[in-house]
Amino acid sequence: MTDLAAVKAALKTQAVETPSWAYGNSGTRFKVFAQQGVPRSPKEKLDDAAQVHAVTGVAPTVALHIPWDKVDGPDGYAGLAKHAEERGLRLGAINSNTFQDDDYRLGSICHPDAAVRRKAVGHLLECVDIMDATGSKDLKLWFADGTNYPGQDDIRARQDRLAEGLAEVYARLGEGQRMLLEYKLFEPSFYTTDVPDWGTAYAHCLKLGPKAQVVVDTGHHAPGTNIEFIVATLLREGKLGGFDFNSRFYADDDLMVGAADPFQLFRIMYEVVRGGGFTADVAFMLDQCHNIEAKIPAIIRSVMNVQEATAKALLVDRGALADAQAAGDVLAANAVLMDAYDTDVRPLLREVREEMGLDADPLAAYRRSGWAEKIVAERVGGQQAGWGA
Amino acid sequence: MTDLAAVKAALKTQAVETPSWAYGNSGTRFKVFAQQGVPRSPKEKLDDAAQVHAVTGVAPTVALHIPWDKVDGPDGYAGLAKHAEERGLRLGAINSNTFQDDDYRLGSICHPDAAVRRKAVGHLLECVDIMDATGSKDLKLWFADGTNYPGQDDIRARQDRLAEGLAEVYARLGEGQRMLLEYKLFEPSFYTTDVPDWGTAYAHCLKLGPKAQVVVDTGHHAPGTNIEFIVATLLREGKLGGFDFNSRFYADDDLMVGAADPFQLFRIMYEVVRGGGFTADVAFMLDQCHNIEAKIPAIIRSVMNVQEATAKALLVDRGALADAQAAGDVLAANAVLMDAYDTDVRPLLREVREEMGLDADPLAAYRRSGWAEKIVAERVGGQQAGWGA
Amino acid sequence: MTDLAAVKAALKTQAVETPSWAYGNSGTRFKVFAQQGVPRSPKEKLDDAAQVHAVTGVAPTVALHIPWDKVDGPDGYAGLAKHAEERGLRLGAINSNTFQDDDYRLGSICHPDAAVRRKAVGHLLECVDIMDATGSKDLKLWFADGTNYPGQDDIRARQDRLAEGLAEVYARLGEGQRMLLEYKLFEPSFYTTDVPDWGTAYAHCLKLGPKAQVVVDTGHHAPGTNIEFIVATLLREGKLGGFDFNSRFYADDDLMVGAADPFQLFRIMYEVVRGGGFTADVAFMLDQCHNIEAKIPAIIRSVMNVQEATAKALLVDRGALADAQAAGDVLAANAVLMDAYDTDVRPLLREVREEMGLDADPLAAYRRSGWAEKIVAERVGGQQAGWGA
Amino acid sequence: MTDLAAVKAALKTQAVETPSWAYGNSGTRFKVFAQQGVPRSPKEKLDDAAQVHAVTGVAPTVALHIPWDKVDGPDGYAGLAKHAEERGLRLGAINSNTFQDDDYRLGSICHPDAAVRRKAVGHLLECVDIMDATGSKDLKLWFADGTNYPGQDDIRARQDRLAEGLAEVYARLGEGQRMLLEYKLFEPSFYTTDVPDWGTAYAHCLKLGPKAQVVVDTGHHAPGTNIEFIVATLLREGKLGGFDFNSRFYADDDLMVGAADPFQLFRIMYEVVRGGGFTADVAFMLDQCHNIEAKIPAIIRSVMNVQEATAKALLVDRGALADAQAAGDVLAANAVLMDAYDTDVRPLLREVREEMGLDADPLAAYRRSGWAEKIVAERVGGQQAGWGA
Repeated sequence: MTDLAAVKAALKTQAVETPSWAYGNSGTRFKVFAQQGVPRSPKEKLDDAAQVHAVTGVAPTVALHIPWDKVDGPDGYAGLAKHAEERGLRLGAINSNTFQDDDYRLGSICHPDAAVRRKAVGHLLECVDIMDATGSKDLKLWFADGTNYPGQDDIRARQDRLAEGLAEVYARLGEGQRMLLEYKLFEPSFYTTDVPDWGTAYAHCLKLGPKAQVVVDTGHHAPGTNIEFIVATLLREGKLGGFDFNSRFYADDDLMVGAADPFQLFRIMYEVVRGGGFTADVAFMLDQCHNIEAKIPAIIRSVMNVQEATAKALLVDRGALADAQAAGDVLAANAVLMDAYDTDVRPLLREVREEMGLDADPLAAYRRSGWAEKIVAERVGGQQAGWGA
Repeated sequence: MTDLAAVKAALKTQAVETPSWAYGNSGTRFKVFAQQGVPRSPKEKLDDAAQVHAVTGVAPTVALHIPWDKVDGPDGYAGLAKHAEERGLRLGAINSNTFQDDDYRLGSICHPDAAVRRKAVGHLLECVDIMDATGSKDLKLWFADGTNYPGQDDIRARQDRLAEGLAEVYARLGEGQRMLLEYKLFEPSFYTTDVPDWGTAYAHCLKLGPKAQVVVDTGHHAPGTNIEFIVATLLREGKLGGFDFNSRFYADDDLMVGAADPFQLFRIMYEVVRGGGFTADVAFMLDQCHNIEAKIPAIIRSVMNVQEATAKALLVDRGALADAQAAGDVLAANAVLMDAYDTDVRPLLREVREEMGLDADPLAAYRRSGWAEKIVAERVGGQQAGWGA
Repeated sequence: MTDLAAVKAALKTQAVETPSWAYGNSGTRFKVFAQQGVPRSPKEKLDDAAQVHAVTGVAPTVALHIPWDKVDGPDGYAGLAKHAEERGLRLGAINSNTFQDDDYRLGSICHPDAAVRRKAVGHLLECVDIMDATGSKDLKLWFADGTNYPGQDDIRARQDRLAEGLAEVYARLGEGQRMLLEYKLFEPSFYTTDVPDWGTAYAHCLKLGPKAQVVVDTGHHAPGTNIEFIVATLLREGKLGGFDFNSRFYADDDLMVGAADPFQLFRIMYEVVRGGGFTADVAFMLDQCHNIEAKIPAIIRSVMNVQEATAKALLVDRGALADAQAAGDVLAANAVLMDAYDTDVRPLLREVREEMGLDADPLAAYRRSGWAEKIVAERVGGQQAGWGA
Repeated sequence: MTDLAAVKAALKTQAVETPSWAYGNSGTRFKVFAQQGVPRSPKEKLDDAAQVHAVTGVAPTVALHIPWDKVDGPDGYAGLAKHAEERGLRLGAINSNTFQDDDYRLGSICHPDAAVRRKAVGHLLECVDIMDATGSKDLKLWFADGTNYPGQDDIRARQDRLAEGLAEVYARLGEGQRMLLEYKLFEPSFYTTDVPDWGTAYAHCLKLGPKAQVVVDTGHHAPGTNIEFIVATLLREGKLGGFDFNSRFYADDDLMVGAADPFQLFRIMYEVVRGGGFTADVAFMLDQCHNIEAKIPAIIRSVMNVQEATAKALLVDRGALADAQAAGDVLAANAVLMDAYDTDVRPLLREVREEMGLDADPLAAYRRSGWAEKIVAERVGGQQAGWGA
């Protein structure tokens, strides 16, 4: 039997980090459809994120992306952190970007030219400086590095360069800071990607040391990959640093988490819970692109989807499951898991929210807030935020 | 035994259409890396295409993309056609674009709003007007239409809208004009795509009539799809209108044709030859993006790769193959096919080129021409061509 | 708003056909694990199927597979039909088998040797004879035909042979009889499969005539294929004959329907309902292999999973959905669909069952029936049914 | 420039291990097509393998599969080794089998029941005993272990059991003996597989120690996986133990190596050569199933395909490649690699064979030998070898 009070208590502790870039414009190589009311600055992104946290109560931190969220001027990142704090938020992981300068055409930290590698490592070190300024704990590294054609570069030499660059950045990490290394099957590279799978990320993190951990982006796998297996394995190895949640039907579609395969999301969250990963040591981050839908409501919906999957995972009757597994009763074991999944947890989450002093329906609360109309009216002119410096 | 003289004769008749957009900049959603010397106008694209034809002798036509190649002014498309003719080229297929206006966020010809559909159909009709002006035979239709989320729109209603729009455009086609309908598994839509597979394209073309034909883009299939089977089937049905050649490791990578799986390209060309498709009724077009490599040499290389695959396909000893197939001798039949594939056809193609009065080595000829240096020096300032109006 | 009474009424009319072979042993190429109590004859399979119908109330028919269910002797198929009728069942689709004779090493209806093709067509005609005897309406055709190596046989010639053979069988169909043509991406053929996708099946059925319809086996697609799109398209074309339901993570895993991706099953059932396919004209059949789990409870569970997906599909508020779609409100439209999916329909189905005079919990009812123990005790000796003649 | 003499010298040292089971019958879950002349005993398999080595000169060892190649009686494995030696062969890797006993329905070394795990480990230890008797260096472990349904068993507990069992076997290895751990995406398990990817195999091997190495079966990956990248990575980590070569279009098709994607095979062999893996420390084994084609010629063809890919890999002008890579010249670097691939190396290999005192054409030599007719005539009666004890 599951202890409902404990489930509710756990759900109240949940923290989902939203990404600053999801509040800005995004698209595909074919088109970026601009939307009205999109933030024009990091502070405006935080303003939007504050709305998400206000109605969900479980989105207290915001990931930054450098240089998209680069701030200059007298108060700099301290001012940004203060802006966040005044809105009930904290700044979260710092995401590096070594793919948008012309220099990075053939890679960054793995580039054949040492000067480009130097520049890339310099950027990563600067990101640690920013972490010092913002109090961020995690440096999240995703490298677009790779090649498009067989023979274009030497696969192994690129691994050597990668290891060397990562080591330098690792050495710079301070107490309580971590490096989260993300892997991705492909895109924007189409033949090799220098960190293509969890095994590669794991092998590098293992050599770097305990501050290096693997990040699982749920959209970065080959078709048919069992992601919850990877989650279970990384937790068993003590190497799961966190998630970039989103969902996909085909490639790295970056849709709202839970939109494409809610059962998979539940299975992932079950392995998180089962493996002792539902703690502050595992960062639960979103990484989505809201290309055609309204952005803030989409993020609220995503947070709610994570909550629902988590609630179902927490509801699994683990004693009954263990008994059925030990007995080798395939159908009974599957039924225990499915019983939790088939449960409609929305009433439970409404209760949780009310007990947290929130509206039971975050989307309705957001709609009533008038924020959507306000930003459309006020954010006129200027340069909308997007995937650019 | 294959007749080498006949093979050489066939190779001399080959015509590969290059796409105007491949001469311009392209990239991924993460970055478009600009290159030096990139054309700034449709005429400059034709100038580059003329270089490709000059050294290969088999790239006499250039596909246009509207509005990227839209020309205004007194001489308009007639002037463009004349510019082409003066360089030994002709204008090829007209490619429509119904994905880059803000109106098309939820689709074009399948959009839920009739006004947007009207606009999209209007564009397609305008493309037929351009065909009349340029003398182009083919209207190539690729629709980015689709949805990102389950429930977003009604799958079937979108098919109805598609059928209605296509019918209006079909009715507008003149004598000798064709509509080539392209399918694509996904991207930029991530849940449904309105023409996702050859079956859907085929079903629509069948109802439209004989002027509607299916285009096979070699990068637009699900993993594991047997493309040559589709080619054989469409030829058998009389519905293969042409190809968009490129290659891929993962999704629609749009790499140089033959770069990822040259054996697949050979098998495709074999089915073309075997099915009687090596004629002017099947359009052999490239559709590639040269994101990180030099563009003109990449196109030359692609044309050469198509030639090599074609040469190998023509070299298949079809009598021996038929005998082994009839005998049910699996290994012997496979060996006949592989014998052609394993042949190094580069010497044969060098001969073909020399007999055509060309340099045996097109890439060396291009390098010697000084064109690359010339365009870098001369094309300074202005707006480089890319995926934008 | 959905009309709950109408939903319940619809659910009471549902009919799911179970396959005789699912009651027998099955496995992989590595091992068939025999189970205790497995039927040794077609009649014993029907006895098991009767248990499934007894507790679910919605599994009134049983598909036969020839020759696995071949019966000889004085009363033959009429006796089998009577055996079924006495247990409240009817005999369903006749499934042909042209893959288990040594003659079929290189194919059956597409074999290069006319004698083998003759034999295969003879078998299919015999299946129609059996339909006449059993009163079955549907002839379900799945062909293992294909090739393993490039060049092994001529793709197009095989299509010609396929068309010829199908035409002969089609001509033999009586009034009210149909031919359901199934497609499959691969397995047991590994290079080409002669009916690999819905497009190929559709093209053949179209030429054959109205009695030829396509069957969608949910496990027979390439990764990433949108099955509900195919369902919607085939319904729009009037060519959806039925389903072989099962589920998969990788290939044709033949797991219990709904086990791998319950959200996909819901989306499929939604398209069925939306497209007017929830009628007797579309056959809802299971095609599963219970390799390691108890077979009868697995089938009961599968039937229940189909019921739950159907209930959710029927609960979709189609008016609200249409409004949101027409308004282009991506999130609202998705939310309407998800609201139905997230509903726990198990209480509703318990009500439906009780109103049908059944136990609210079919699996508990089956357990209490003692049938499992009875067949283990009584079915001793003899040859257990499996994938063999 | 490549040194042709060195290439030829290297090719003469090549050793490809053929698997005993490829000489026996195999098939799919649908059908095993028996062939005439198939061996009835391990010794007859060696007799066939000797023919392969006689005509190719590069297949001196034969992998055994226990219990399929279990020998009893007075002279046992020593007698088998002697039989091999008399035919110019040696016994190669010992392949364990923990998937064909009824006990293994829910797994072997990962089974929830300790008694089954004990049995499985006992079998593995017995395999090491056999290695002692045969002088085999490698214990090749492939586990069919996994689950079919979510919840069926505990993913992490299974990893613990796996680690424990492997450790016990590892401790038993003698001097000069290795454990080669194979991974596989799926089949026969359909939800989780306990060693699904190279990362999992690598993590276990790393903890076990230097005698544990990873085996790459070229058919065991998710669609789109870059296998040569894995090869390069494992070589860099000193953890590549060997290959199971075969080829695939879809899943683990086990076709002749090089049949589906010869370019991929070349790229893999290039990474082997480049990474210093073309030595005795990396075992080059075939693992194929010749379901419909003649078995011995298929194995000869496979060996030749490996030779051709190796020859092309050795022909890569590595100096020119390194220069182009260092210069960031994408097209030039790709062209260097492709130049080697496009070369027809069959004349070179004919020379190599003649210099080794062999017929230039191994398949013709085999045909002339009369062996095929001889075994059909002589191997009458008895139980043909296949995938069974």
